[in-house]
Amino acid sequence: MAQRPIELPPEHLYPPDNWRVVETGYSEPYAHRGESAFSLSNGYVGIRGTFDEGRPAHTPGTFVNGFHETWPIVHTEDAYGLARSGQTIVNVPDATILRLYVDDEPLYVPTARLRRYERVLDMRAGTLCRELDWSTASGKHVSVRSCRLVSLEHRHVAAVQFDVVVHDRAAPVVISSEVLNRQDVPFGDDESGRPAVVDPRRGARLRRRVLEPVTSAADGLRIGLGYRTASSRMTLGVATDLSVETDAPYEARCTAGADGGAVVVTVDAQPGVAIRVTKLISYQTSRAVPPDELVQRCGRTLDRVARDGFAALAAAQRAQLDRFWDRADVHVDVGELTPRTQQAIRWNLFQVAQATWRAEGAGVPAKGLTAASYGGHYFWDTEIYLLPMLTYTRPRIARNLLRFRHSMLPSARDRARELGQRGAMFPWRTINGREASAYFQAGTAQYHINADIAYAIRRYVNARGDIGFLAEVGAEMLVETARLWEDLGFYADDGEFHIHGVTGPDEYTTVVDDNAYTNLMARLNLGYAAEVVRILESERPEAYAALADAVGLLPQEVLAWERAASAMHVPFDEERGIHPQDARFLHHEVWDLGATPPEHFPLMLHYHPLDIYRHQVIKQADIVLAMYLLGDEFSDEHKRADFAYYDRLTTGDSSLSASVQSIVAAEVGDEQAALRYFRRALLMDLADVAGNASDGVHIAAAGGVWQTLVFGFGGVRDHDGEISIDPRLPATWRRLEFSLRVRDRQLRIRLEQERERYLLESGDALELRIRGERVRLVPAEPHELTGPPAGTPAGPS
Amino acid sequence: MAQRPIELPPEHLYPPDNWRVVETGYSEPYAHRGESAFSLSNGYVGIRGTFDEGRPAHTPGTFVNGFHETWPIVHTEDAYGLARSGQTIVNVPDATILRLYVDDEPLYVPTARLRRYERVLDMRAGTLCRELDWSTASGKHVSVRSCRLVSLEHRHVAAVQFDVVVHDRAAPVVISSEVLNRQDVPFGDDESGRPAVVDPRRGARLRRRVLEPVTSAADGLRIGLGYRTASSRMTLGVATDLSVETDAPYEARCTAGADGGAVVVTVDAQPGVAIRVTKLISYQTSRAVPPDELVQRCGRTLDRVARDGFAALAAAQRAQLDRFWDRADVHVDVGELTPRTQQAIRWNLFQVAQATWRAEGAGVPAKGLTAASYGGHYFWDTEIYLLPMLTYTRPRIARNLLRFRHSMLPSARDRARELGQRGAMFPWRTINGREASAYFQAGTAQYHINADIAYAIRRYVNARGDIGFLAEVGAEMLVETARLWEDLGFYADDGEFHIHGVTGPDEYTTVVDDNAYTNLMARLNLGYAAEVVRILESERPEAYAALADAVGLLPQEVLAWERAASAMHVPFDEERGIHPQDARFLHHEVWDLGATPPEHFPLMLHYHPLDIYRHQVIKQADIVLAMYLLGDEFSDEHKRADFAYYDRLTTGDSSLSASVQSIVAAEVGDEQAALRYFRRALLMDLADVAGNASDGVHIAAAGGVWQTLVFGFGGVRDHDGEISIDPRLPATWRRLEFSLRVRDRQLRIRLEQERERYLLESGDALELRIRGERVRLVPAEPHELTGPPAGTPAGPS
Repeated sequence: MAQRPIELPPEHLYPPDNWRVVETGYSEPYAHRGESAFSLSNGYVGIRGTFDEGRPAHTPGTFVNGFHETWPIVHTEDAYGLARSGQTIVNVPDATILRLYVDDEPLYVPTARLRRYERVLDMRAGTLCRELDWSTASGKHVSVRSCRLVSLEHRHVAAVQFDVVVHDRAAPVVISSEVLNRQDVPFGDDESGRPAVVDPRRGARLRRRVLEPVTSAADGLRIGLGYRTASSRMTLGVATDLSVETDAPYEARCTAGADGGAVVVTVDAQPGVAIRVTKLISYQTSRAVPPDELVQRCGRTLDRVARDGFAALAAAQRAQLDRFWDRADVHVDVGELTPRTQQAIRWNLFQVAQATWRAEGAGVPAKGLTAASYGGHYFWDTEIYLLPMLTYTRPRIARNLLRFRHSMLPSARDRARELGQRGAMFPWRTINGREASAYFQAGTAQYHINADIAYAIRRYVNARGDIGFLAEVGAEMLVETARLWEDLGFYADDGEFHIHGVTGPDEYTTVVDDNAYTNLMARLNLGYAAEVVRILESERPEAYAALADAVGLLPQEVLAWERAASAMHVPFDEERGIHPQDARFLHHEVWDLGATPPEHFPLMLHYHPLDIYRHQVIKQADIVLAMYLLGDEFSDEHKRADFAYYDRLTTGDSSLSASVQSIVAAEVGDEQAALRYFRRALLMDLADVAGNASDGVHIAAAGGVWQTLVFGFGGVRDHDGEISIDPRLPATWRRLEFSLRVRDRQLRIRLEQERERYLLESGDALELRIRGERVRLVPAEPHELTGPPAGTPAGPS
Repeated sequence: MAQRPIELPPEHLYPPDNWRVVETGYSEPYAHRGESAFSLSNGYVGIRGTFDEGRPAHTPGTFVNGFHETWPIVHTEDAYGLARSGQTIVNVPDATILRLYVDDEPLYVPTARLRRYERVLDMRAGTLCRELDWSTASGKHVSVRSCRLVSLEHRHVAAVQFDVVVHDRAAPVVISSEVLNRQDVPFGDDESGRPAVVDPRRGARLRRRVLEPVTSAADGLRIGLGYRTASSRMTLGVATDLSVETDAPYEARCTAGADGGAVVVTVDAQPGVAIRVTKLISYQTSRAVPPDELVQRCGRTLDRVARDGFAALAAAQRAQLDRFWDRADVHVDVGELTPRTQQAIRWNLFQVAQATWRAEGAGVPAKGLTAASYGGHYFWDTEIYLLPMLTYTRPRIARNLLRFRHSMLPSARDRARELGQRGAMFPWRTINGREASAYFQAGTAQYHINADIAYAIRRYVNARGDIGFLAEVGAEMLVETARLWEDLGFYADDGEFHIHGVTGPDEYTTVVDDNAYTNLMARLNLGYAAEVVRILESERPEAYAALADAVGLLPQEVLAWERAASAMHVPFDEERGIHPQDARFLHHEVWDLGATPPEHFPLMLHYHPLDIYRHQVIKQADIVLAMYLLGDEFSDEHKRADFAYYDRLTTGDSSLSASVQSIVAAEVGDEQAALRYFRRALLMDLADVAGNASDGVHIAAAGGVWQTLVFGFGGVRDHDGEISIDPRLPATWRRLEFSLRVRDRQLRIRLEQERERYLLESGDALELRIRGERVRLVPAEPHELTGPPAGTPAGPS
């Protein structure tokens, strides 16, 4: 069997630029994915990178995190306990639209004669700006500049500034500022109310009217619209405010209706006289507040923002991002490729920032707020792919996201009951807390999400030193997840604790016994829950008492968790010297990836699940992920053997895979594989590695890029609550520099080929392990290492 | 872990009667299941046992075998190769309705004052007759008698004779003879076109208009209606003819419309003057013929049948059934319980007869034509549960059903291609040949259906000596199914041939490796295919050449099948001395059936599939079925050990289980278990053992009853193409007597406690094995054994 080579992605279109992603022309084949790449979001509101004119628009979308419609999942063959609660994020009314007409001729980018065109995502400014010079059919020359932002400072606010100058001659100019309910208008082809499905990754699309219009008003140049979703009964308010600045005479009319509103500004444009329209946008959503009250709230927000104007919004945006980059930026010097690489790194980090910044009281959808793919659902992506970066760069946000998980605990308890288990069982995919996975074999069966949450709690608490978090919400989640594991598994004749009938991270194998990842992570979950309960008992007796009371905790339970953890079965194949992915995996026939035609990837779109399941073939890192997350539980020898075995079976058909493969490849010394996987992760969306970049940004892969840099090449680990650093700087890289926030200290690490610098920028002295040696860092006294590091591992054996 | 006892079903309501099932009064709680128990069918048309008045009707239904609507199966989470072709048998217009009004007061059984009421299913006459004496509210006394039949002689014909006599005084009598399209009239609550689902066993219900009216005509007292299904574009014609015989003055009006028609007969009834209305009904269906032509065909059929009248139909019906009972009846003498037992046995055999009699060019739905449950789909039930009885009693019908399987071969080839396999892959459930199983884990994954078909072919050919069948269609199916197995499995490191990722008969465990039943049956399939190819090659060279040409057969293929068969892995657990159901089964935790509340059965309605899958718990006989079908491949010791192990894990949540458990229990000498399982199978529907008798007759269970008697207590086997008989007459039974048709000989076997009689009633001398000894039976010279048989096995050890 030939192995499939790790393919290097092509480069993307955008010219190299350290801080910006620049589109230098309109290209139809790239327009669709550009809508994803130029998305703006603050984690609460997200707007795809569509044109101001509202067209051409391939998959236009504006989303408010957690604002969703529900529908009954109908299973053609039904069974007990299957998910019933279909949930789909709603495409809320698009408020960005600013249509421009000169001499009644509309600006339409694909066919317009453009002397200049540039669209710029500025990752320091947090804006998407477009500048173009348009020669109209009637011979006028018109400069158009627009600048869009979704405010990081003001959660409910987005804004567009739109500048038009007609050169040469006077001309009638019309700017139509619109709000359009796209959710219900174009998708009216079916009255069933159930979603149409194409690519399983894309998610369901609702096919009946979703947004019931409740209120609409045009007041001055302000539009206010209120809606209620037909089934979930969530409420939405959206309002826009328009201001016009020009020395040319103009008039404006404002109208509003059920599915939108418009402010039409008609200007007698004079040559060279600037016309500026500033559109402020506000969204509010709720589960209970009536829509008209939400519209009023939007109005008050707009009043406040309008006072300071667009410039103030832009300045605040920049200031916010300055702080972000100060904490989260990763610098590289990779020689000639530096600007391209740096640009792509920042674009990925920027995506994580956008997806999570103001996601207060909500989770992080798989695509952030850049598309409705995966229904806008929250998965384990948050805990395993985003929280590492957030924990060490934006711990407050990490805390918010874990608190949000806790808010789902009642539903998770109900779900455990429904499935005949004690404790809590977090849903594989959800918005409202209830399981929305219609295919339970690769959904509900991924019990490991319970342990992923416990793992993320542990990491957060260790990195932040935040025992208060445990007392407040963390311990309760740990207790309930541990209870589930203890109840789910059983002691077999061999005296070991086994967990059967689960699916691990790799979805090319489902419903197996003793998935190694699951068992190892469950062991951590059980052990950490016991540890935390004991810590609270001794250090926070009041918190312990409250917890014990709230969850009815019995002392023997804790003993049972410890017993299960210590008896946990960890499959190991003595003959091959590797960990089997599960009890049966190594018995299967090996899929011949070398003989699989390239156009047959991803396999899931070309082979029946049964065909895939009965083979040794991997969608995404499973045991390799365990080696990364629980690296201290594997010997170096086993890491090398496991990686060598599983890497050749891994398709990377999941975008979650490349970063993890890269990190472990770096650790085991396979630098070439590490670099190739890194590039796949790095360019997942910018170069459309998975072929579906148009369906939204792979936020988890973006979070994986940070981990690849910091944990992979940077060699950072935190297995035992202590930071350890064993850099694996690739031989071709000149420099890698990043920051970590650990227990209120700010750490800055600069790695070069013959020089390493570890600096505590702020905070008290910190002990950590650098290249195996315990080091005590004190502020302003960098720890430096020079010369080729002794411990540089050899290449793959 | 306590075992769940094999519960004895309660007795049913019907008074003991050797040949009839009699309902002696109307009882609301039993009315629903009575509709199933009193169904009439000839295998082409089926009519549920509703009242002539058309109400009360719980689930009225008239079905034409194979007449179905299609709809797209929508998977909320989609994947490659999932079944797309939803198929649902259509409830065709109900033509039985005869509403009676006396003094304008309708006869309505639940509230009518009835001095006498009796409804009789006569299993010799093949009729459902009702007699009642009704005292109307206005004080009239009215005798009403009706008799319904679905003709076994005339495939397209049903008929009702309806007699009314008003006593005492004259009265206006109205008899409204109606045809009603029930399919579309009551189910108009949803326009989605996709089915509503309640109990997974019940199947989908279409929720949009299905039958498009194409033609309707009222001509004299004849109604003709033609329809086309909205999506599958099948066509249907239905016509009724009415004749009135009375000395009282009457008039009749006939009308017809889109959803039905009526002939209203108004009689000035005189005291004591008989009124007889005879309604003849005809159905025709097609995939292509226009509806009006079908209606014309119905008309011609009615012309012909009307000439001879109802009496001729009834006489032909009786004659047909006389022949059936002569071949297929099983007599028992079990002492006091004889009439009850005999009645229930005959009811089950009668159900098999009704379901299969005229199923020409069609299969046998899981519920026959007694309900729309399971969508009217054809499963493996036919090959494994019905064909044994048919092969030895009605071989022509067995042949038809196997030929029907062959007609699906093109679809099965397509399906194999789609799933990446060579050969053919028969659908788990279908009407039109395409896979309709929306839950592939317990559907498509049951690859064993391929081998079940091969097994049924082999049994038929052996029992009939019909090599011509092989040459004609049998060999082609064997070649294509063998090809699939050889391609599906693989040689593992142990040198054995393994089959992974399949589901065996037991649906409480899905998608496993090396399911013992599947591997054993696949081995038979591979070996028999090779054997048949070699036989044709040597004995029918022309047929061989035609086959080789038709399927592109290569000599090395046959060698590959033989190699795979001889290398087939058969899992065996040395320690326990039993065959594991699959590679993982014995590793699972044992489900505690003793501790499971009785109301939690069937488990599938109360536990999540994952919960069930991870335990040792069995829905229906799996390895035990293999022990029965392939008894010569198990030692007696293993049979005892396997049965003891698996029987205690078996819930019997499937109606297919009890008969097989009974047969093997009888073989291993556990007479008590054999008798208890026999009673469960016997009373499955009459006493509503599964709780869903109202959803139609469990036809496979009915076929299992014959097997339980003949193969279980009768001890008949045919493993090596030679009949062997090792009776296991229960100690409490006085007599068991049955017939077998083997290679054109008629064999009659009478077993008593101290006397056994084996008689060749017709045909040439036959060699068989009786109690281990080879015996040559010659006509009219019974072979008799007396005295307690030496080989009677002891009870369970």
